Amino acid sequence: MNQLQNILLPEPTLRRLPWYLAYVEILRGKRVKYVSSTRISRALSVDASQIAKDLSFLGVKGRTRIGYEVEDLARALGDFLGFTRTHRAYVIGAGSLGKALIRDSGLSNYGLEIVAGFDVSPAAIGRTDLGVPIRHIDEIYDAMARTPAEIAILTVPAEAAQESADIAIGAGIRAIWNFTPYRVKVAEGVVMANTSIYAHLALIYTRLASMGQQ
Amino acid sequence: MNQLQNILLPEPTLRRLPWYLAYVEILRGKRVKYVSSTRISRALSVDASQIAKDLSFLGVKGRTRIGYEVEDLARALGDFLGFTRTHRAYVIGAGSLGKALIRDSGLSNYGLEIVAGFDVSPAAIGRTDLGVPIRHIDEIYDAMARTPAEIAILTVPAEAAQESADIAIGAGIRAIWNFTPYRVKVAEGVVMANTSIYAHLALIYTRLASMGQQ
Repeated sequence: MNQLQNILLPEPTLRRLPWYLAYVEILRGKRVKYVSSTRISRALSVDASQIAKDLSFLGVKGRTRIGYEVEDLARALGDFLGFTRTHRAYVIGAGSLGKALIRDSGLSNYGLEIVAGFDVSPAAIGRTDLGVPIRHIDEIYDAMARTPAEIAILTVPAEAAQESADIAIGAGIRAIWNFTPYRVKVAEGVVMANTSIYAHLALIYTRLASMGQQ
Repeated sequence: MNQLQNILLPEPTLRRLPWYLAYVEILRGKRVKYVSSTRISRALSVDASQIAKDLSFLGVKGRTRIGYEVEDLARALGDFLGFTRTHRAYVIGAGSLGKALIRDSGLSNYGLEIVAGFDVSPAAIGRTDLGVPIRHIDEIYDAMARTPAEIAILTVPAEAAQESADIAIGAGIRAIWNFTPYRVKVAEGVVMANTSIYAHLALIYTRLASMGQQ
């Protein structure tokens, strides 16, 4: 598995794999034993040959006329995507969204363990009701020595986004998951993922407006 | 403005506009009066001519040697993206993520007002501690008559995603914001936006693994 994971998958494939997993998990819940790429294709509107190609990256091969074994496929996808291992994260910015993510226990089902939150506001620091300690951002170096994390989830105000990312990376964080609308820049070798919830909201609003019924 | 909004913007432009807004808001906070596309370009690593082109969609034009007026640009972007108007939404699925989004008061700064939550679990229904009522999904028709919403935020388990979307659309919802890993299908004319947080997690995990240091 480790060797396979060292292949840098194309991003579109990486985006589709969680769809396959979600669908296969549903089948597993229904005690379905086998699934063909044709059936996945119909359910998800993805071309069957694309599915077979995507899954071949995982080293999973379907059998002629039978398809993929549901159990095997679910396990292979979960393992490949990293959901079955624990990855430690800090939340930087314990405001509204930061607290919400800390509280979202569902993320742990996908291998994400949030071990600490950081902020600069005296009102936030020292809170203990969220399940993880909220500490001053200056303590991130100390935290990295004691309960290290690989991922920093960035939920600070936009104006603090770049500086917060720089501090986290300086302390040894290797991946930034950016929820701010600011376009954070990182050095090569640091993993960067943007979850642009505001861009998605704008997309919804403008599409609704363009339908002329708002 | 309405007329401009009826232009269906290309999605890449729509993704960049919130970056510009976030940056311009920072400048506004610093009492900066004017900003050139070159300066925005340097800050965000977007080509200056692309920025000028994107902003021309809004009918905003910079002045030679002076650039854009920061106040005007911030207002034009906020208006155009729909952040300055209120859009009502329901949260379908008051589990961990659903509750987190209901609690995330920051979304209201971007024009999103969550007015009700829906679930099927007796443990969730009737809760009043989240600030909005949590009702049984069967009551969505009644809710649409009394406190209508345009947007349904989908935070149910994957196996309930399609059915929940169908119910919401049947009740009159016009846009689905899908947070589930399931690839929900909707009829033409219904707005669909996917926020694939699990895909982003997978991207982070696999990129970290491919760097061979995990």
